[in-house]
Amino acid sequence: IKNSSNELQDFAEKAWEMGRSDPRKIIFAIKMGLALAIVSLLIFWKGLYDISQYSIWAILTVIVMFEYSIGATFIKGFNRLLGTLFAGMLACCFAELSLLFGRWEEVVIVISIFIIGFFASYLKLYPTMKPYEYGFRVFILTYCILMVAGNRTREYAEAIVTRLVLIAVGAGVCLVINVCIYPIWAGDALHSLVVKNFKDVANSLEGCVNGYLKCVEYERIPSRILTFQAYDDPLYNGYRSVMESSGKEDTLLGFAIWEPPHGRFKTFKYPWKNYAELCGALRHCAFMVMALHGCILSEIQAPAERRQVFQAELQRVGAEAAKVLRKLGSKIDKMEKLGHGDILKEVHEAAEQLQRKIDEKSYILIKSDSWEITRQAMENLLDVKENENMQLGFKSLSETVLDLGSLSVWTPSSPKRDSSGNLFRKQEPWPSRLSFGAGAGIREKCRTYESASALSLATFASLLIECVARLQSLVEAFEELSEKADFVEPMVTDTAI
Amino acid sequence: IKNSSNELQDFAEKAWEMGRSDPRKIIFAIKMGLALAIVSLLIFWKGLYDISQYSIWAILTVIVMFEYSIGATFIKGFNRLLGTLFAGMLACCFAELSLLFGRWEEVVIVISIFIIGFFASYLKLYPTMKPYEYGFRVFILTYCILMVAGNRTREYAEAIVTRLVLIAVGAGVCLVINVCIYPIWAGDALHSLVVKNFKDVANSLEGCVNGYLKCVEYERIPSRILTFQAYDDPLYNGYRSVMESSGKEDTLLGFAIWEPPHGRFKTFKYPWKNYAELCGALRHCAFMVMALHGCILSEIQAPAERRQVFQAELQRVGAEAAKVLRKLGSKIDKMEKLGHGDILKEVHEAAEQLQRKIDEKSYILIKSDSWEITRQAMENLLDVKENENMQLGFKSLSETVLDLGSLSVWTPSSPKRDSSGNLFRKQEPWPSRLSFGAGAGIREKCRTYESASALSLATFASLLIECVARLQSLVEAFEELSEKADFVEPMVTDTAI
Repeated sequence: IKNSSNELQDFAEKAWEMGRSDPRKIIFAIKMGLALAIVSLLIFWKGLYDISQYSIWAILTVIVMFEYSIGATFIKGFNRLLGTLFAGMLACCFAELSLLFGRWEEVVIVISIFIIGFFASYLKLYPTMKPYEYGFRVFILTYCILMVAGNRTREYAEAIVTRLVLIAVGAGVCLVINVCIYPIWAGDALHSLVVKNFKDVANSLEGCVNGYLKCVEYERIPSRILTFQAYDDPLYNGYRSVMESSGKEDTLLGFAIWEPPHGRFKTFKYPWKNYAELCGALRHCAFMVMALHGCILSEIQAPAERRQVFQAELQRVGAEAAKVLRKLGSKIDKMEKLGHGDILKEVHEAAEQLQRKIDEKSYILIKSDSWEITRQAMENLLDVKENENMQLGFKSLSETVLDLGSLSVWTPSSPKRDSSGNLFRKQEPWPSRLSFGAGAGIREKCRTYESASALSLATFASLLIECVARLQSLVEAFEELSEKADFVEPMVTDTAI
Repeated sequence: IKNSSNELQDFAEKAWEMGRSDPRKIIFAIKMGLALAIVSLLIFWKGLYDISQYSIWAILTVIVMFEYSIGATFIKGFNRLLGTLFAGMLACCFAELSLLFGRWEEVVIVISIFIIGFFASYLKLYPTMKPYEYGFRVFILTYCILMVAGNRTREYAEAIVTRLVLIAVGAGVCLVINVCIYPIWAGDALHSLVVKNFKDVANSLEGCVNGYLKCVEYERIPSRILTFQAYDDPLYNGYRSVMESSGKEDTLLGFAIWEPPHGRFKTFKYPWKNYAELCGALRHCAFMVMALHGCILSEIQAPAERRQVFQAELQRVGAEAAKVLRKLGSKIDKMEKLGHGDILKEVHEAAEQLQRKIDEKSYILIKSDSWEITRQAMENLLDVKENENMQLGFKSLSETVLDLGSLSVWTPSSPKRDSSGNLFRKQEPWPSRLSFGAGAGIREKCRTYESASALSLATFASLLIECVARLQSLVEAFEELSEKADFVEPMVTDTAI
């Protein structure tokens, strides 16, 4: 008992915390309670016409229609309206029909309910009917209720009209309270979700590049990452939340297009669809961030010394790309156009610089000791590299001397990093291979993975460049949105983009 | 009018087609109609006690509880049960309380409705309460209805009991019809979805590798792909459907764990959760397939001649990996264990072969003419490569002669492929760069991208190897599932895995 009372206390604390961090949730609950209380006053209506026995219809309408966001409330209301009207009309027809049949009346009613139930259930499975699922439910429900009530009182017309009026009252109370008291707009939520997504991808991208350069490694990759479940890792969470948000975006988009102009979204037909497209383009970039993270997760890792060679360039590309993403995010937040100047200029320059560096130093990215003739030349080159100490300047080869010690740079760093000598401790991908093959076999394989480890740096760099290339379509999507949504021109002080 | 009648005809045809391709949908609709018709017979009950005025409760229960799959029906039923019971208990308490207050009765009722509405609306926003959202709705609804009905007749106890009995009748009819007549299980759907996902990824992977080797290119990348929307491209659709299916899997999983043992899933506590994990691991592989497809979409492309060099190895890895995926898929389908032998043996061998080949030919993957000293040696090597004609054998260098013509292999193929000389026609990533910089600037940049184009082949190969590495965790997830779910041992004839 003490345990469960503790749990209850814990739950209460969390529930209180939820309200404090997002007061809109408390406001929503108060609004709902208020709407119900107002509608329930109808119970005590003692007028000329006893309406209280039907008051449940108004209450029912409030319960099903009152949704968190205004767009959702409108959709539900629309569904309820359509469903009720169609059901009312059909009920009228079948009621007349059943009266004609006299003593077979009951059979006709049961058959009509079967037919209505069949068609409504079947059609709501039709793909494009998904958003109207609720409408079909209301339709069947209303039809059945009208038939039951009409059959009892023999006053079909009266039963139908009273109910329609009460449903209208319930819907009216719902809409007035939901729109007039502290409205919660799905459009606002979509807007902030997009802004948040930009920040998340930017953080994740920057984190991946920095983590890669710092040789961040996972002792053991959490199986939650391997199965793409939620996991408490900022790098991973950043891009994962963007990818998982697509369902949420679709839902919010579906609601937002129903909302009237409000707040900062002043035009009718506000281009909400472009928000979804922008998020799609952002996701297209996020996939590359995911692939970059994949390089960190991979069991084949480039040695730290080689990563150092490209450190400045990689970091600059990562930082510039993240800057572009953050800038776009804040532009959306402020609803500003891009302005003159090319937002991608710096990141493209950084990418080109990285590319040139790769170009110059591509010998670092491969394992070349199998090209017998060039082996010695290689060693010379490596020596140059060592002496350079990450400087961009390229010393003339005549200054360098052959230094066999530099060969150690070529051996993959795994033996250094892992005293057990197990190259595959992460993900343990080929354990059977390692235990089967012995002696020379293993050595042969280890040499093979040495070259893979160097290539993984090339992979990282080229994924990063591809990520930069994908920014272009993101910027285009943003420009389309900013045109259609009529974003403001940026302030003049902002010319130094 | 003719137009809309055409549309209607079109709709009818499609609806008919939907039923023909998946008869379960028709059966579901018939079952729903049947359940409604049976419950509606209560309307005509003329017994000792006039039950017909409450018959709408049974109908309402059927309408809200009757869901496509049995698991969903159980969940709805459970929600309805809990919601109704709690509401009934609370209604009893508040009814007694309101009677105590005498003339303030009505105020107490309205306040109680406000409080109930507030708490129920607030708690249903609590994250872990999501699956019980429907229960909260039923709870509010039932509470309000009981208060209204009780207040009218002053017989709170009777109002509550009658309604509970009728709800039980409706729920009973629902369950009996849904379970006994051609049951549709969410577990079956989840099982087939997993099998289908495996096939999709395998096809997509194989398609990507083959497409890359055939130098498939997109004239213009459809903007739907750039914004990750549905698009009619088999390669793209394969992995996209797997990634998008996560929501569907979660829904089905939520239903499946409620279902009793049935069909081939004979144990209680069948490990449905492992299906979701398996899908997560599959998605982890699919991300790599997506990255491979990204190489095809990329505007920087490796020249076809260089791809040819690795053709045999790349193709073998792709084919073996797809084979493993298909094998796992069919094992799940047949509910068979893996058996002895290592399912990954061949694909690992293929990956190692590819790795060795990269190792030998890594000079193809980079642009080395900036390493002045090795230039001549390079040319020799290239010459060797040309003479080899994709043979694995390595001729001794003494046999080769310096052939400057072989340098043409080094120039990137883009000018050959694109007469307009525009390297960036796809995605047009750096158009501003190209138009701004002129003359020498462009040439410098083109040289930069030449090396990028060669590196993109390295990227493709190393992504493919990473994809193979990820198969390991997939196989582990499968083994865990096959143990927990007690899959059968494979037939003896199947030893040659």
